[in-house]
Formats: sequence, structure tokens, C-alpha cells
Amino acid sequence: MKPIKISEAVVRRLPIYLRFLNELSLSNIQTVSSQDLGEKLDLNPAQIRKDLAYFGEFGRKGVGYNVDYLIEKIRQILKLDKTMNVVLVGTGNLGRALCNYSMYIKDNMKIVAVFDADPSKSGTLLNHLVVQPMQELADSVRQLDISVGIITVPASEAQKVADEFVAAGIRGILNFAPVVLKTSPGVRIHNADFTAELLSLAYYMDHHEALNEGDGER
Amino acid sequence: MKPIKISEAVVRRLPIYLRFLNELSLSNIQTVSSQDLGEKLDLNPAQIRKDLAYFGEFGRKGVGYNVDYLIEKIRQILKLDKTMNVVLVGTGNLGRALCNYSMYIKDNMKIVAVFDADPSKSGTLLNHLVVQPMQELADSVRQLDISVGIITVPASEAQKVADEFVAAGIRGILNFAPVVLKTSPGVRIHNADFTAELLSLAYYMDHHEALNEGDGER
Repeated sequence: MKPIKISEAVVRRLPIYLRFLNELSLSNIQTVSSQDLGEKLDLNPAQIRKDLAYFGEFGRKGVGYNVDYLIEKIRQILKLDKTMNVVLVGTGNLGRALCNYSMYIKDNMKIVAVFDADPSKSGTLLNHLVVQPMQELADSVRQLDISVGIITVPASEAQKVADEFVAAGIRGILNFAPVVLKTSPGVRIHNADFTAELLSLAYYMDHHEALNEGDGER
Repeated sequence: MKPIKISEAVVRRLPIYLRFLNELSLSNIQTVSSQDLGEKLDLNPAQIRKDLAYFGEFGRKGVGYNVDYLIEKIRQILKLDKTMNVVLVGTGNLGRALCNYSMYIKDNMKIVAVFDADPSKSGTLLNHLVVQPMQELADSVRQLDISVGIITVPASEAQKVADEFVAAGIRGILNFAPVVLKTSPGVRIHNADFTAELLSLAYYMDHHEALNEGDGER
């Protein structure tokens, strides 16, 4: 099957749908309308219907979407129906927070190894994982079939870690360091950028009145 | 002056431009072309020119953009030319990481108060700030003229904190808890969502080949 090409904006909304649908499923709610989804997620219901129509029709007029079917479908589209192993480098406060945080994610993306450049951290325990020295990175990536790397080191160290990830065969990077990383062909980098989120918030606070009728994306 | 309405996608790119321009400015580089910006930020130069043209023409053909002027202009647009005080609630690993992290931001957005619902945390020091009990939130928000609140508490507590923020007069919220918050009119909520970034990464890793010619947004 040829993969459908979906816009970035839609791909970024799918995990948000997924989270809310998971909440509904846990509460044994079996159907949901685009209206309910829109209200809860602060999105236009027409936008939601359009997003979901990308993947074939599975809403029924007057009934809504079947929650579990939609969950299954979105997971398939996001390729979350198979497990993806994740490595994290940088065991400061942020790295530690993420290791705990990762337990919220259903099993499909899982931090299975943690590394730190500081030799004094090696051998310590972090959420049941033993912190390893950087020299062991490539071996662990191969042995554990790791495809995604998370960077939680200071900005000055981030490019070095990214290069080591790429050399080890990692194809997806989630970068938390406040720096623009040089990308390599075939490697996808997402920036989880606190400051950008914070700074763009400022814009809306002053303009908010003018934007209430707007197209709030998140 | 009537504020221009700018699309979310553009507003979210501006802090990314700003970061790179700040790096250039620190290195005493005075002009930059949309080509250079595009290469470094993995964006289409035409897209960059279009984004920046929103705010009037300030690139010159064959010369490029004046770095410091562009910085000043983007800061004005994002309303970062005046200081905005920020409060953070939740002093776990993530909250602690953010308090340190915030030092990367130039003075304009500044965490000036930290709170925790756990009474045993009250009075402890976090990056030169004394952790306060929640009862003092409303007073501090008023006294320190705080307009932005950051939520770094567990998902189960996040809505309660958001409600307290809104009651205290905060109009912008950056939410790190993996839960969809109920919004109030006139209040802007941004979600800094690790899991969404991570989950959307999976999509691109399997489809990457098909997407290389695509419109990478970040």
C-alpha cells in the first residue's frame, strides 16, 4: 500500500485526537461526534471531519465516530501499532522528568536506554534503567533496535549527540535543546521547544481579542 | 495601530527565526539571506520571505536582511519588547528543569514565582526563588503583575491549577501536563506536549522517503 501524504498540521493534530479518544475509551464511551471533539479540543468540527476523512470515511451521520475504531485507525496511521524503542541522552532534570513522563505513553514508544556524557552518572539508576556511558551508545542502539533518540543535554552539546545518534543509525530525533540542529538526509528532527511555545504565547495575549474568532490550531 | 492577524503557523515560526538571528547577532553577523535562513532552519526560502513580508519589506535584494533590525521587528511583533512575568506551578523534575532553562530566554519572559501544592516544598529554594504554597498564588500574580502561567503538575492536577490561574487573572497558559485543559474565553492555552511531538515523529520515520520533498514545518 502506498502511504498517503498528510500535511504536518494534520499529523500534529492526530496525537491530540488520540489522547482524548483514549480518555473516552477508558471511560467506556463508545461513540463521539466531531462536535464533541471540537468542543473539547478547541478545534472547528468541520476541520476535524476533514482531518479524519483523510483516512477514509468512518464517521456515521447522527451517530458519530466509533471511539475504539478511530483509536485503532489513528494508531495505524501514525505507525504506533508496532513498538518503537527510544534512547534518551542527558539525565539532568529534564531527562529525568521525561523518563518518568514516558510512562504515560502506551507501550508503543518506550525509553529503553539512557545515556549521559558525565562518567559519574554511569551506573546510576533512572526509572529502572541503568545510565550508560556514551561509548556504549552505538552498541545499545543496534542491540535494542532503537530508532528514535531524545536529546536533553545543554545546547552546546546537542549537535554532538545528534551526530552520534545519526552515526548509530537513529532516524528520528526529538530535540529539547534550545538550538537549531543540522539535519542529515533521511533523518527527521522534531524540536520540542519550550521557549518557542512560550514566546509565541506572548503574541496571542496582546492580540487575543482580535483572534477569538480565529482558527486556534492547538 | 490595528494588530495584523497572522496565521498560527507563522507565529510559531517567528521564535525559531528569532533564536537563530540572536545566534548570528552574537557572532557579529550583520546580514542574512533568506537562503541562509532556509538552509539553517530547514525551511523553504520562499516561505521565509513570505513570512517576513507580512510585517513590511525589510529584506534588500542581493544584500539580505539586516539581522539586528529583523530581531527588533520580530520582538515587536511577538510583543517581546516589553517584559512579561511568568509563574510556574509544580516543582518536580520538569518544573525544576524549566526554571533553569528559562535562563536561556532573554529577559523578556521571566519566571518570577514558583508554587507547589505539596506543603513540604514550601520555603525551599529553586533557582533563587522561594517555592510558595498555592494559597499565595492570587496575591503574587497581582503583586508581581504576572500574565503567564506554566503548568508542570501531574495530569490529574492540571485543570485545578488552570482554574486557579484564570481566577487569579492569568491570560496565557503553557501546559506541560498530558491532558486537554478546558479553556476559558479570553485565555490562551498552549500545550507543550512531549508525547504529541514524539508520536508524530513515528509517522515521519516510516514515511520519510515519500516526504523528503515535503514542506517540513519545523
